Amino acid sequence: MSDVRTAPTGSALDDDELHALDAHWRAANYLAVGQIYLMGNPLLTEPLRPEHIKPRLLGHWGTSPGLNLVHTHLNRVIRSRGLDAICVWGPGHGGPAVLANSWLDGTYSETYPDITRDADGMAQLFRQFSFPGGVPSHVAPETPGSIHEGGELGYALSHAYGAAFDNPDLVVACVIGDGEAETGPLAASWHSNKFLDPVHDGAVLPILHLNGYKIANPTVLSRLPEEELDELMRGYGHEPIHVTGDDPLTVHREMAAAMDTALDRIAAFQRAARGGGADRRPNWPMIVLRTPKGWTGPAEVDGLPVEGTWRAHQVPLAGVRDNPEHLVQLEEWLRSYRIDELFDHEGRPRPQVLECVPEGERRLGANPHANGGLLLRDLPLPDLGRFAVPVDKPGTTLHEPTRVLGDLLEQVMADTAERRDFRLVGPDETASNRLQAVFEASGKAWQARTLDVDEHLDPHGRVMEILSEHTCQGWLEGYLLTGRHGLFSCYEAFVHIVDSMANQHIKWLRTTRKLPWRRPLASLNYLLTSHVWRQDHNGFSHQDPGFVDHVLNKAPEVVRVYLPPDTNTLLSVADHVLRSKDYVNVVVAGKQPCFDWLDMDAARAHCARGAGIWEWAGSEDGHTEPDVVLACAGDVPTQETLAAAALLREHLPNLAVRVVNVVDLARLLPKDEHPHGMSDAEYDALFTADKPVIFAYHGYPWLIHRLAYRRTGHRNLHVRGYKEIGTTTTPFDMVVRNDLDRYRLVMDVIDRVPGLAVPAAPVRQLMEDTRLRHHDWIREHGTDLPEVTDWTWPA
Amino acid sequence: MSDVRTAPTGSALDDDELHALDAHWRAANYLAVGQIYLMGNPLLTEPLRPEHIKPRLLGHWGTSPGLNLVHTHLNRVIRSRGLDAICVWGPGHGGPAVLANSWLDGTYSETYPDITRDADGMAQLFRQFSFPGGVPSHVAPETPGSIHEGGELGYALSHAYGAAFDNPDLVVACVIGDGEAETGPLAASWHSNKFLDPVHDGAVLPILHLNGYKIANPTVLSRLPEEELDELMRGYGHEPIHVTGDDPLTVHREMAAAMDTALDRIAAFQRAARGGGADRRPNWPMIVLRTPKGWTGPAEVDGLPVEGTWRAHQVPLAGVRDNPEHLVQLEEWLRSYRIDELFDHEGRPRPQVLECVPEGERRLGANPHANGGLLLRDLPLPDLGRFAVPVDKPGTTLHEPTRVLGDLLEQVMADTAERRDFRLVGPDETASNRLQAVFEASGKAWQARTLDVDEHLDPHGRVMEILSEHTCQGWLEGYLLTGRHGLFSCYEAFVHIVDSMANQHIKWLRTTRKLPWRRPLASLNYLLTSHVWRQDHNGFSHQDPGFVDHVLNKAPEVVRVYLPPDTNTLLSVADHVLRSKDYVNVVVAGKQPCFDWLDMDAARAHCARGAGIWEWAGSEDGHTEPDVVLACAGDVPTQETLAAAALLREHLPNLAVRVVNVVDLARLLPKDEHPHGMSDAEYDALFTADKPVIFAYHGYPWLIHRLAYRRTGHRNLHVRGYKEIGTTTTPFDMVVRNDLDRYRLVMDVIDRVPGLAVPAAPVRQLMEDTRLRHHDWIREHGTDLPEVTDWTWPA
Repeated sequence: MSDVRTAPTGSALDDDELHALDAHWRAANYLAVGQIYLMGNPLLTEPLRPEHIKPRLLGHWGTSPGLNLVHTHLNRVIRSRGLDAICVWGPGHGGPAVLANSWLDGTYSETYPDITRDADGMAQLFRQFSFPGGVPSHVAPETPGSIHEGGELGYALSHAYGAAFDNPDLVVACVIGDGEAETGPLAASWHSNKFLDPVHDGAVLPILHLNGYKIANPTVLSRLPEEELDELMRGYGHEPIHVTGDDPLTVHREMAAAMDTALDRIAAFQRAARGGGADRRPNWPMIVLRTPKGWTGPAEVDGLPVEGTWRAHQVPLAGVRDNPEHLVQLEEWLRSYRIDELFDHEGRPRPQVLECVPEGERRLGANPHANGGLLLRDLPLPDLGRFAVPVDKPGTTLHEPTRVLGDLLEQVMADTAERRDFRLVGPDETASNRLQAVFEASGKAWQARTLDVDEHLDPHGRVMEILSEHTCQGWLEGYLLTGRHGLFSCYEAFVHIVDSMANQHIKWLRTTRKLPWRRPLASLNYLLTSHVWRQDHNGFSHQDPGFVDHVLNKAPEVVRVYLPPDTNTLLSVADHVLRSKDYVNVVVAGKQPCFDWLDMDAARAHCARGAGIWEWAGSEDGHTEPDVVLACAGDVPTQETLAAAALLREHLPNLAVRVVNVVDLARLLPKDEHPHGMSDAEYDALFTADKPVIFAYHGYPWLIHRLAYRRTGHRNLHVRGYKEIGTTTTPFDMVVRNDLDRYRLVMDVIDRVPGLAVPAAPVRQLMEDTRLRHHDWIREHGTDLPEVTDWTWPA
Repeated sequence: MSDVRTAPTGSALDDDELHALDAHWRAANYLAVGQIYLMGNPLLTEPLRPEHIKPRLLGHWGTSPGLNLVHTHLNRVIRSRGLDAICVWGPGHGGPAVLANSWLDGTYSETYPDITRDADGMAQLFRQFSFPGGVPSHVAPETPGSIHEGGELGYALSHAYGAAFDNPDLVVACVIGDGEAETGPLAASWHSNKFLDPVHDGAVLPILHLNGYKIANPTVLSRLPEEELDELMRGYGHEPIHVTGDDPLTVHREMAAAMDTALDRIAAFQRAARGGGADRRPNWPMIVLRTPKGWTGPAEVDGLPVEGTWRAHQVPLAGVRDNPEHLVQLEEWLRSYRIDELFDHEGRPRPQVLECVPEGERRLGANPHANGGLLLRDLPLPDLGRFAVPVDKPGTTLHEPTRVLGDLLEQVMADTAERRDFRLVGPDETASNRLQAVFEASGKAWQARTLDVDEHLDPHGRVMEILSEHTCQGWLEGYLLTGRHGLFSCYEAFVHIVDSMANQHIKWLRTTRKLPWRRPLASLNYLLTSHVWRQDHNGFSHQDPGFVDHVLNKAPEVVRVYLPPDTNTLLSVADHVLRSKDYVNVVVAGKQPCFDWLDMDAARAHCARGAGIWEWAGSEDGHTEPDVVLACAGDVPTQETLAAAALLREHLPNLAVRVVNVVDLARLLPKDEHPHGMSDAEYDALFTADKPVIFAYHGYPWLIHRLAYRRTGHRNLHVRGYKEIGTTTTPFDMVVRNDLDRYRLVMDVIDRVPGLAVPAAPVRQLMEDTRLRHHDWIREHGTDLPEVTDWTWPA
């Protein structure tokens, strides 16, 4: 593989280049302002009048000139060095800037042919921005060249690293606003450079843009003494390069030099590493860019300073349509960019403006890495039969589902060793989650110091572990968005840490699915394990099954939730989600020994249906219909349900019990609410329309009601699940405390099957007594009742 | 006010002191190991046998010796300097350590008289740990002296700062594990020192404990070159002091000196600031403590290194009950602490062990700051009448609810100027959320550099703004947990960033409410504004009303959700939540101009009921029962519902319409599911048992079903809300896209009231036509239909 190219001609700008860069920047600034304000008269061919102004002035000017500056200079180095580069725009609310550049370099018109690169197109570009039926105000999925919206701040740098991993020839520039830099996820992600392999990965060039202000406050980093900021950056492992100023031509010169210095250093580090001559982690360059917020905008409005202050954050002149003075000021501002030098009379950018623009796919708006589906290859997945556990008889053998999944993942890792397009991420939990077989095929990425005692650390590893769920998620998102595959294994409770990141990724996918030019991506796959029922070491703080509730509020076309009840079903689900595209798949599965219920063929068939009757577990034989349905979803609820079914067979042999297991939770939704939803006829065929259903669910019980409330039989649905009662205790005590245990389920059946309560009273009493005996036993012995720990499915 | 005391006698340890410290540390280590392993023979008065060993070995040894070291040395400086100090134990999974110390200093027996400070009590201390019916394995609410569980990592330092704010005489030590240091929230919270006022706030002493490993990996910070780590700490604004070693006596000497140096510097900074002589932000000291993970535990187990590696993380000897070699090794390990020197034959700590222990409330386990309810004073709240907006006629005047709330908060700020026990936190959004009146009473805390252009920055301010929801939440939690009051104002969508922190705080409160010795705290109050319906500038990424769903999964005794529909109801709700204790209150209210519906008296009465019929808005007069119920919750849904009611009056004057507004969402739950839940009789009296109910809800519509699915009339409940359809568009277009608009609500009524469809067909067509007209209008004009924007409640 090659490395980042060095400049062919050194870094000094000649005057022509300088003025061409400035022309491009002014043009982009003009187009940004135009988008915020204008719905007519785009080239100011006539004096500005109120009716040219949008009735609602919406957008973010403050960050736009800085983004335009970076874009202009990225254009230059891409062109001069033949770089393959993309940019993550952290201050993505500066949508007007990125749209402006994309229009200038032609990618916008290629993507949206109606928006031509001329006066008509410019008029439409302006009008559509933040306008009903138009485009959003942020760097959104609709924006060519973007893999990052920048609406919710914090993830720019981890996205950039994710994009750079396993893309050795790519440079990922990343603009970090000084507001975003205050967030936790961003602060943590600086340390990503300890995981970036200079041999197999590309480079990330962070550009910390200190424009000094957030919405209404100065930013912390902009007010540090410069030496303190430099120490911070060096402490993060970077060598800072400063660009500071408010005189455009000076800043252009400095920025060009800074970019060249940074890229030369990156190239040198890569050459050294790839030539085998490097023995230490590079102190990768980064740029600190200090320019005024709202630079080149109105210096003062209504007597108050605006340029260079927080007042430039959104729309600096707010009263343009009604306030003639503001209108005049806007016109002066727009004309200050010297429109005639920028566009010809038909509104086309003049050649000087386009001098710095790269060609074809090298344009930032057209680089295929930013439309990762273009580059995506199907993941090579082995035959599941090789990993399946044999099941001669249900409920008699035990396996740790995630451990067996680890064997499958090992094979996937091995089969992608050359392609390098699959990564496993997790917050220090790969082994704790029992996926460690994967280390046989790939170690853990690690560029920091190592000691003899370390195991499985590998400078070229594709297992990624950092104790930051945010960084894990951000890396994986960046990796997927640039056309690769991955899996995030996480403790179930702590995936809530990335609730809002999952939100944003789901929103992104919902939008991209409607854009034909955006090609489908590999799904974002969560394996949630170390789950609520088995927090033996950790207790209440580690018990939360609510991520499923969270994602099920989101776009149904994107979200999938699976609760495989045993090892073979987990394999089948994993195979499915790793092949799927454009979804967020949530797979909840245990790591503790779990009964095997289904052989591989049965598991495949069951997972394909998503929910089904387990005839072998029920007692419907000889009955025309069941007296009661025992439904279950999740490994522990399935075990308790099967144990309850066995108790019912033993103690109430005439009762017709049906056992239904649900793997794919969205099956419970109505057909018109989710693509996986069942018709009412299907639902009734499984659950009946009128019999009591005792549903043992892995998580919060009311979620099942929220999914099934429209069903005919909903009145008869009785759900048991986690009721937010937890502590460090035994596994069986956890289910007893939450009324999900086998004895309680039997009692529920007796209480709810019409006419059963009186004849079954002694059985109910036996269940009650056993629960009390459990209570005393564990408090004395510290372990579960022997009849629970020794239980297997009856012969 | 005073400042942190300097040492009376300098810092050199004499040999007696040294050995006493070491004895205390050894005793704490012994007690930590005992808790993990022993259920009998606590003093090893007989050889260890398998039956002395717990059947389930659970807990975290690795971090415990380090925590014991810090605790021992904090004891020393508290005693020698007369310090008022608490400690936040970031690696709170090291529960055995903090419990051991608490038992040693007597606070444990004072809190739990059954666990005496003798052999019997020691036996119980050991047995109860991580044992069914006993205490959790972490530094939990049950642990005296703790304000922080440390189960979910990331919040130690922000909690510590929260505790230090407005506690000028307090030192808050904070142990940060090198695992936790990798998380985003922790990384961001280092910059809290730019917000710490050396005059009015106490000091935070971060102790970064680099024991080198997480569960299965080395930590990033432990593998940085020392100079790089120092640059990082200096970049964070701290001066690091290093303590490194594995020889106990050497480390004791170094640690004592480091503590003295740090506390002397803190005292000097405080003296300078409080004497008016300081002109720059202090570079506060912090300690980098490098000691082996699992220090003093088994060096090797089964031929593999354990001490000083990740293998020491949980239970280093796992097979003790069945493996005689492990049993021998455990006995050697326990005896290595020289038990006889530590405890007398009755199991009481010997005097040398207790030499360093402070007295009374100065003991870390007994400091009232760590049981903040002991110090809590009711917040002075002004008469709401002074802030109420006049409402002569509903729906004809407009106010911005949060702006008026800002006036109330200004008064609260003013009234607490001397007491300094109220803070307002938010991620750079106080003014954006229109609460800026508060700046008249307090500026924004800021210790970094200021410029002339800045507004409202104040080194002594109690409004806290940093662009990190995590840090805001952590600060506020620490502030509340130490007995003060506050409010967190946040964009509705981005409060998901702290989903998991809210989880953990709710779990904490659920537990403390059951502990009589824990006194009630002020509630954690969220004001969620800039909500889903009014993201005019930002669009889809900023649209998410799901935090309410998230918290309603949690403990019902703790969680409250309010959706005040106008300004006066917001005032009433704010008054209520600011007076309340031990809750997490979520208040969702808009900042945009909103119709005034209720005068102050009506608002109070309505909020007290939580849900009620708005008779003036309905058309039930002369009818014995309504034909339909229009229900609403939230400001925008209320507006649309009232507009729909007006349309129905106009177009279907004979229809008996009831309007019900819900402020307190938990009222919809059954009485036995939530303390605010309604009885079925109350519910039916409001919503009827058999009439169609068209419910316009602020958030995801299925939440209402999840709350009300058990109600008799649930079959007739039809909910409209946010369906995850969003972009940058007009306010009315947002409600149209999500089918929550007035015209759709009227159509819903026509479709659902039996027998109405045919006679009302022309009205339905009119509604349909108006929606189509809206669609065309906004695409042409960019604004909402004039009849929508000009609408007021009819005369």
